Amino acid sequence: MTPPLKAVTTPLDDVQGYADTRGVALKQAGVKQVDMPLSLMEKSGGIQSIKARVSLGVHLEKESKGTHMSRFIIQLTEWSRDKVITLNFKDLLEETMTRLDSKAAHMKMDFAYFIDKKAPVTHYSAPMAFPCSFQASLIRTSEKKLSHQLVLGVTVPVATLCPCSKEISDYGAHNQRAEIRAHLVLDTTTDHQMVWIEDVVAALEECASCPVYPVLKRLDEKYVTERQYDNPKFVEDVVRDATLVLREYPGVLGFSIEVEALESIHGHNAYAFHEENVTATHGLHS
Amino acid sequence: MTPPLKAVTTPLDDVQGYADTRGVALKQAGVKQVDMPLSLMEKSGGIQSIKARVSLGVHLEKESKGTHMSRFIIQLTEWSRDKVITLNFKDLLEETMTRLDSKAAHMKMDFAYFIDKKAPVTHYSAPMAFPCSFQASLIRTSEKKLSHQLVLGVTVPVATLCPCSKEISDYGAHNQRAEIRAHLVLDTTTDHQMVWIEDVVAALEECASCPVYPVLKRLDEKYVTERQYDNPKFVEDVVRDATLVLREYPGVLGFSIEVEALESIHGHNAYAFHEENVTATHGLHS
Amino acid sequence: MTPPLKAVTTPLDDVQGYADTRGVALKQAGVKQVDMPLSLMEKSGGIQSIKARVSLGVHLEKESKGTHMSRFIIQLTEWSRDKVITLNFKDLLEETMTRLDSKAAHMKMDFAYFIDKKAPVTHYSAPMAFPCSFQASLIRTSEKKLSHQLVLGVTVPVATLCPCSKEISDYGAHNQRAEIRAHLVLDTTTDHQMVWIEDVVAALEECASCPVYPVLKRLDEKYVTERQYDNPKFVEDVVRDATLVLREYPGVLGFSIEVEALESIHGHNAYAFHEENVTATHGLHS
Amino acid sequence: MTPPLKAVTTPLDDVQGYADTRGVALKQAGVKQVDMPLSLMEKSGGIQSIKARVSLGVHLEKESKGTHMSRFIIQLTEWSRDKVITLNFKDLLEETMTRLDSKAAHMKMDFAYFIDKKAPVTHYSAPMAFPCSFQASLIRTSEKKLSHQLVLGVTVPVATLCPCSKEISDYGAHNQRAEIRAHLVLDTTTDHQMVWIEDVVAALEECASCPVYPVLKRLDEKYVTERQYDNPKFVEDVVRDATLVLREYPGVLGFSIEVEALESIHGHNAYAFHEENVTATHGLHS
Repeated sequence: MTPPLKAVTTPLDDVQGYADTRGVALKQAGVKQVDMPLSLMEKSGGIQSIKARVSLGVHLEKESKGTHMSRFIIQLTEWSRDKVITLNFKDLLEETMTRLDSKAAHMKMDFAYFIDKKAPVTHYSAPMAFPCSFQASLIRTSEKKLSHQLVLGVTVPVATLCPCSKEISDYGAHNQRAEIRAHLVLDTTTDHQMVWIEDVVAALEECASCPVYPVLKRLDEKYVTERQYDNPKFVEDVVRDATLVLREYPGVLGFSIEVEALESIHGHNAYAFHEENVTATHGLHS
Repeated sequence: MTPPLKAVTTPLDDVQGYADTRGVALKQAGVKQVDMPLSLMEKSGGIQSIKARVSLGVHLEKESKGTHMSRFIIQLTEWSRDKVITLNFKDLLEETMTRLDSKAAHMKMDFAYFIDKKAPVTHYSAPMAFPCSFQASLIRTSEKKLSHQLVLGVTVPVATLCPCSKEISDYGAHNQRAEIRAHLVLDTTTDHQMVWIEDVVAALEECASCPVYPVLKRLDEKYVTERQYDNPKFVEDVVRDATLVLREYPGVLGFSIEVEALESIHGHNAYAFHEENVTATHGLHS
Repeated sequence: MTPPLKAVTTPLDDVQGYADTRGVALKQAGVKQVDMPLSLMEKSGGIQSIKARVSLGVHLEKESKGTHMSRFIIQLTEWSRDKVITLNFKDLLEETMTRLDSKAAHMKMDFAYFIDKKAPVTHYSAPMAFPCSFQASLIRTSEKKLSHQLVLGVTVPVATLCPCSKEISDYGAHNQRAEIRAHLVLDTTTDHQMVWIEDVVAALEECASCPVYPVLKRLDEKYVTERQYDNPKFVEDVVRDATLVLREYPGVLGFSIEVEALESIHGHNAYAFHEENVTATHGLHS
Repeated sequence: MTPPLKAVTTPLDDVQGYADTRGVALKQAGVKQVDMPLSLMEKSGGIQSIKARVSLGVHLEKESKGTHMSRFIIQLTEWSRDKVITLNFKDLLEETMTRLDSKAAHMKMDFAYFIDKKAPVTHYSAPMAFPCSFQASLIRTSEKKLSHQLVLGVTVPVATLCPCSKEISDYGAHNQRAEIRAHLVLDTTTDHQMVWIEDVVAALEECASCPVYPVLKRLDEKYVTERQYDNPKFVEDVVRDATLVLREYPGVLGFSIEVEALESIHGHNAYAFHEENVTATHGLHS
């Protein structure tokens, strides 16, 4: 089949800019599953290269047929090349709003963050990855006012040892890997307290029966085994202890916390969940 | 090492029932990633066997150390053996609350639902799977009053053909598979309108450039190709058309709708998102 | 843009049937990620409804431009409606070869298989899902001869308790959920020994420190905890014990076995792998 | 319960070193799902930070009860800190064999590799991620001889436009994103030809209807749409064209190639698969 010919419109029509008559403004339109190399400030002052999987979108007025998808990638590419992330998502979102001529912007990024962890006795050190996320929104609520929300997500693998199993058994106690998944609503006012992933991980590890480690020699394994046994915790215990920690955590306005244990006696998982001061989601969704 | 011996406490201690002094009531404690065979009523009146992946949990009072995890599995097993699901999650949750002696219960289940779909011209028919979910909560708000929320999630694969690509190109237009992901807050009052997955799927398919099908012969493929081309839609268009449909959908109190297109010109996806009348989440979380 | 018109070729051209001049015969062409409801014979004689995710493809001669994708779905739909699976994949593949006029056919299906499991002391019973797969191929090696291969895959979650941790620690021992993943090359000659998933699961569970269960009451939990402790196993031990079992398993010609433990002291996993008498893959690939 | 006390064996017993009497040597024992930051040489001479998910294991003699899991992490950590990857996996595996005192070592790593891609007309540039893998084995076949195998895996998202749909339709043609997944058995002899991911990606993109891009402006979108339409390909066509390319690719001894299209007219996928000169897998498994 010979393809039909047509004179090229010059310049090409901006179809996205066409008028829309349905009268439906959309909360978000944008791009998803975008893999992007980014640079993140470490607590040490170093810069960590991360591979982020990003969603970025804007509010779409009811009059506009579509958003301009290429601009989100250009926005992210500029940050990939020139910027270091230090909770400065307000800047990213404000640039996005300007570039897309919108009154609200929303971003989510998932990434693995590496922290060097030392074995508790021998101090062998190796990198360990923690799945993390940032969810951020910026909404123009009046001509001069912007509302900004920033949520940090951190997943911390730990060990839990069952208090019931320990109590009722003549010897031993079942234990397992568990995941602590925290989402922290951060204070984003000027002069806000900096919140470091390194510190959040360390604080949450303390809430479990024992942290987990990338390298353990026999002396470490003995220590970890006995510490687990001395420190039994249900998933409910871990969530409660984490709640007490996060209520007082500087720079944290609210939080949700979920612990899910990959039970070593079941094929399914046990979980507990709690949240406090997590108010309107401001357009965030997963 | 010879394991140490210990006289068995008879009966075994109920460690979960121990008192807790931290003063933290938990929104949820329970089981996750439980695979369970269940029976679901079809619109036709038939019964479909589904494999559901279930979370089930309850509110935990601040005085109790832990919940009783085995009871959730027993609860689900009874429903696996004896019940047919017909949006009757209030019963399931009420039984769970009673069994666990709690004032709130929460459930989420994900499953694939099969619907026979006919090719548009030749009418060849084959089953096609739609990823679905139910999220339900039941909360005792006073001695005599229970608040019930039920959300149906349906994912519908469809095709979108890009209006911009069609307009600016001399011939052809890029198109791709997209997913419409709807979450519907259902009316759960007595004499509520029944909402069928079959109808939701059919209504949402109409919002895309074209449905997708399990079997297409050449006459069907010609039809589908031309219908896509005649009916270009951005992800934004699909969300808007779905919004107009869901606002008027009988039995639906509120909704969120997301469309994500697996762009055939990019390695990443385009998406649009909207929601209306989705109020407090009543303890639901993913 | 008004779409260009073209007279429809009547009947529509069979483009797949066009000649190809590159001289490259393809090992496989077909469909993937097809969800299909199927019926599987249980050891008890009952029929289990499963949701299978299926790949089905055929050898493509170097002279043919393409295969006919719709026929695979029609083939699977007929089996979905009319047949019960009892290792009878030779029939499925022979029908596929005939329907597609090809000299070889290949199939893979993944599904969850439910088995009722009883708690070891209280005998509470509940369904538990085991991820399973079948990989089958049928190849015409001469005018009268067909070569058939069938591989059954079974994943069995179990518990492992670390012998080193037990030995070196004053008390306790770390344990965790592990997955035994076996692939069994089945004898497909006439009068072959029937191999039941139920029996394979039971045999493999015996190779671990302890099985896992869907429901455990306190008496069961005590039993399971102490049995784990009395029966420490590295992943290497589980693979070795499984090897001894599978070498003698009636109806099994060869096998691979992998055990992966979700270590409760690390964020990563430990694994061991072995295989015997797994010869040419006969076109199977994952 | 007061935990039982036990004098610590000093030094702690090497339980892994205990004798084993079952007489079963294991093909592999080691670690899996290890996330590790590594450095990879780019074709440009630059260094790319990657996050790799690694498996690393060794052959285990029938006389040894277990391997020493911590040494694998120490091995990987050294490479994380000190080395740049340039297909030099023989060194990594030889160090592993020495460290673990084994006669064979096996490694697999999965990672995303970023390549800057330019839009075809406007030349806007942005990073795009390609899922890649290395599988490597080193086996001592005699006192002086080591057999080394190295397989590079590259996944390239592209577009395919259906030749049948174009031919039989009055206008338009369905197209979709597809994935080309190539596994290349690399020549590892001294003075082997260097194989760059950048070149493999570029060569495979040419086999599809059109590459996909991270950023496309309208002029680019017009170009891409029309190029797809001018260049229809079945998945079978892409595999055949890739086969012709890979047969002649310098430094490649054998290959498998799979193309899977996320059909825009179906909810399932179409695929084609071929392989040539992929001999004994030398202990590699997925």
